[in-house]
Amino acid sequence: MNNIKVIAFDADDTLWVNETYFRDAENEFAKLLSDYETENKIHQELFKKEIENLKIYGYGVKGFMLSMVECALELSNYKINQRTLNQILDLGKDMLEKPIELLDGVEEVLEKLQGKYKLIVATKGDLLDQERKLEKSGILKYFHHTEVMSEKKKMDYEKLTKRLDINPSEFLMIGNSLKSDILPLIEIGASAIHVPFHTTWAHEEVSEEQKSDDYKTVAKITDVLNFL
Amino acid sequence: MNNIKVIAFDADDTLWVNETYFRDAENEFAKLLSDYETENKIHQELFKKEIENLKIYGYGVKGFMLSMVECALELSNYKINQRTLNQILDLGKDMLEKPIELLDGVEEVLEKLQGKYKLIVATKGDLLDQERKLEKSGILKYFHHTEVMSEKKKMDYEKLTKRLDINPSEFLMIGNSLKSDILPLIEIGASAIHVPFHTTWAHEEVSEEQKSDDYKTVAKITDVLNFL
Repeated sequence: MNNIKVIAFDADDTLWVNETYFRDAENEFAKLLSDYETENKIHQELFKKEIENLKIYGYGVKGFMLSMVECALELSNYKINQRTLNQILDLGKDMLEKPIELLDGVEEVLEKLQGKYKLIVATKGDLLDQERKLEKSGILKYFHHTEVMSEKKKMDYEKLTKRLDINPSEFLMIGNSLKSDILPLIEIGASAIHVPFHTTWAHEEVSEEQKSDDYKTVAKITDVLNFL
Repeated sequence: MNNIKVIAFDADDTLWVNETYFRDAENEFAKLLSDYETENKIHQELFKKEIENLKIYGYGVKGFMLSMVECALELSNYKINQRTLNQILDLGKDMLEKPIELLDGVEEVLEKLQGKYKLIVATKGDLLDQERKLEKSGILKYFHHTEVMSEKKKMDYEKLTKRLDINPSEFLMIGNSLKSDILPLIEIGASAIHVPFHTTWAHEEVSEEQKSDDYKTVAKITDVLNFL
């Protein structure tokens, strides 16, 4: 990690709390549908619907809202009360207006790294929503710019380093998702530091054999300073 | 326009047909709600709902879908049939899977300009949807990259030229919306060529007095070649 020029931070659950809000919304959703199915079944069906729709909606709250509406219609066999559907829309709108809760140590890390590296945000999700969160977070000033990516696979990072006009070896990614923020970076010869968050969306989980020794895992984000 | 380095093309209704699909969906939506209101009233209420939600959803099909669902619930006083709501979701999904219909002359223009300028796409809308359309269009190869913008105001273009590391005077924007693709560019000292499309979304319309002589308007996209 001697020649790092650009450090990219994942946003959701790396800089600020996010997954917790999705979990809360899913629990509320299950309550609203409790006349029709068990909580467990509702969670399973919503997850299935999200994955089914991912290829057309992509990541983010708006796609999640549309999947909740569709799931509610189907699970209830089109009997769900229309006012309940409105409450489901409100669950999503609330998510889009949540205050930003920065994770511990984030500002200290950015403070120390600024000026020494080009710092960017590399995130999936809705463009407007991610911009809103960054603006509300108070840490916008530390970043050169934000890259909102429709996917975070090997090819997407290759394109990103090309657009940034750097070699993969000059790129360091810091994030909470092994699948999206770490493993594809190792594949292209970039560096990556894994900072786990206590909750991971099932879609982002990886199996034990996909893990490798080529990246560092730290307990808290301030620990990345030991390597830089 | 002697020192242009980067030419940005708006995407929807500049490179390919888009607004027509929104108009078609709005008409279908009005038919589905015809038990509750006149066609005219339905169009008005949907437009109001879209504008009201624009600040949280931003541009694009997913926000449009969520606004249709909300509008249908409210306009029907929460009496709308649940299966009709499913049909409304399908209207949106169909939009996300429409084939791409390139506008006349687009490929000829890109063919002639490639290699002489850095060509990019600068568009509002859903990131994934715009990437999908560009990929399907067959013209991805002509572009250095795509900038998906949450807004197209003066400040957004200032940020864009800064990120591209060029002066505004080295930037030319080509697009169909006076409000989004032309006027803010003139304000920052960049160049702009207006290629009107036959249909304009009401939100994109500008009044007569906002128009100026500082940009060119051409009848068809191949006419931009006369200035380059």
